[in-house]
Amino acid sequence: MYTLPEAQKLVENHIQNLSIPDAPPELYEPVKYVLSMGGKRIRPALVILACDLFADAAEAAMIPALAIEVFHNFTLLHDDIMDRSELRRGKPAVHVKYNENTAILSGDVMSILASRLMNQAPGVVLNAVHDIFTRTAMQVCEGQQLDMNFEELLTVSEEQYMAMIELKTAVLIAASLQIGATLGGASQKDAEDLYQFGKNLGIAFQLQDDLLDTYGDPAVIGKKVGTDILDNKKTLLMIQALDSADAGQKKELTEWLTCREFDPNEKIRAVTEIFNTLNIKDLIEKRIHEYYEKAVSSLKQLNREEGRKAELYHFASELLNRDR
Amino acid sequence: MYTLPEAQKLVENHIQNLSIPDAPPELYEPVKYVLSMGGKRIRPALVILACDLFADAAEAAMIPALAIEVFHNFTLLHDDIMDRSELRRGKPAVHVKYNENTAILSGDVMSILASRLMNQAPGVVLNAVHDIFTRTAMQVCEGQQLDMNFEELLTVSEEQYMAMIELKTAVLIAASLQIGATLGGASQKDAEDLYQFGKNLGIAFQLQDDLLDTYGDPAVIGKKVGTDILDNKKTLLMIQALDSADAGQKKELTEWLTCREFDPNEKIRAVTEIFNTLNIKDLIEKRIHEYYEKAVSSLKQLNREEGRKAELYHFASELLNRDR
Repeated sequence: MYTLPEAQKLVENHIQNLSIPDAPPELYEPVKYVLSMGGKRIRPALVILACDLFADAAEAAMIPALAIEVFHNFTLLHDDIMDRSELRRGKPAVHVKYNENTAILSGDVMSILASRLMNQAPGVVLNAVHDIFTRTAMQVCEGQQLDMNFEELLTVSEEQYMAMIELKTAVLIAASLQIGATLGGASQKDAEDLYQFGKNLGIAFQLQDDLLDTYGDPAVIGKKVGTDILDNKKTLLMIQALDSADAGQKKELTEWLTCREFDPNEKIRAVTEIFNTLNIKDLIEKRIHEYYEKAVSSLKQLNREEGRKAELYHFASELLNRDR
Repeated sequence: MYTLPEAQKLVENHIQNLSIPDAPPELYEPVKYVLSMGGKRIRPALVILACDLFADAAEAAMIPALAIEVFHNFTLLHDDIMDRSELRRGKPAVHVKYNENTAILSGDVMSILASRLMNQAPGVVLNAVHDIFTRTAMQVCEGQQLDMNFEELLTVSEEQYMAMIELKTAVLIAASLQIGATLGGASQKDAEDLYQFGKNLGIAFQLQDDLLDTYGDPAVIGKKVGTDILDNKKTLLMIQALDSADAGQKKELTEWLTCREFDPNEKIRAVTEIFNTLNIKDLIEKRIHEYYEKAVSSLKQLNREEGRKAELYHFASELLNRDR
């Protein structure tokens, strides 16, 4: 049985040794660049841990785990073009370091490479694993589309927001667990329970991310706070604030959301102050707990001895208490 | 047994009935738009014909055939962004009709959809079919990268050019036949023979395309001639011309290739005249014949009765004699 950090380390080693073609270098160097940037390797590690729950040969899940990580990094690469993000993990994004065409095409080849790696799953589960993978991959695109749509909207409902983060973030975490379980020989029911665990945890994870963007400690999270506020992101914080604001607060929030010239620090300070007055932090923390509890109840249902599940419980509670 | 036009028509019907999700419409409408634009549906029809060679139930190859067509259209969509092409089949390209982000993301989801459709191949050949498909898909990206690289180069060798068109165009035609044959239960050797048939035919096809761009009848090909000359494309025509030109002709060609201000019609006329003096049309036609002969010899080798191969011979000779 692996611990999460062991699985993460194992994945990292395999990613560094992943055989990527050399030619043409203009196509494949950006792929190597993206994959060498690091990251927590949470998704592939979850593939390993989920497989480990059912089989004592989790190494067999390694190549499909890498497929998930390559796919995830492909989405980051293309998202950075679409979102005009210049930095990724503190380094220049591919479309900045190289150029936009390179970023499009290198991303394309990564997406195909992910599918090619997934094709190394054992024949007996190949169809099932590919089915989960491609269904999920399409959903991730749908989530990114919804996220882009929200930029054009002045208001987004809570329901719309939750649907978006489920697609953009949660389903890939869920699918990582479902694929790992399937590779380990789990029943469809057990793999589905793990999917639900991952989905709810993924939602909690994203809400935590949103919370840290406003309330994190810059020294700990390693980036500035308030970027969502500056970008007028309709996160659950803003949606809840607009929902519970009185007329005056609503007017002030709307002014900040539509105002074109402002002092960034003043905007962050003023919006955060309204959030504070409305107890938004507590509200979101409550929601995070609800999703955490849902996740844990799926894990409890899972038909494996509790001892084998320990690492996943641990992972869930670490996620809940993270400060970065 | 299907004829090529029958297979094309069958494919067209299935494409029009292909179930594409509706939501979010911003993501999937461009996919439907691209797939409704028409096109000759050659590649999926070849999947059907190749399967038909070995099995009398070629309909079973339909979904993988659609996968190939969806993938091909995905590459056109992303190529149009990268090449800044505004028109596709006489209609606005997706990045023009919608916007660039939409074109990137809709292309991404098409690539995944192609993989998802391919996953419907029967279990006994699923791994083999996916393997051919993903290997080929990566090669198509490599070909597009080489094509983009050539824009930055003043000279491209014949060897470089042939390698590029093999990757960008020929291998997908080849793989369509190999996948169809595999679906039909062909031996690996027979599927490989068909691959070689398709690869050499694909090269001949691309050279014919290049030839028509300069020497086609605008009324028949449905577009202007000379666009490759205006875009300074290093096609085999230009490469052969530069190779066989005397000092004066070489100087004139180089001037046209580097000159920034010119009368387009005058440039086309002057370059075509040099091509004519150097007999470039004959040279290229000779090369096309060589690849056609290579293709046909692979088809002859194929261990099936000649009667069953008639439609593929017919396809090859039509390709050779096409004027559009």
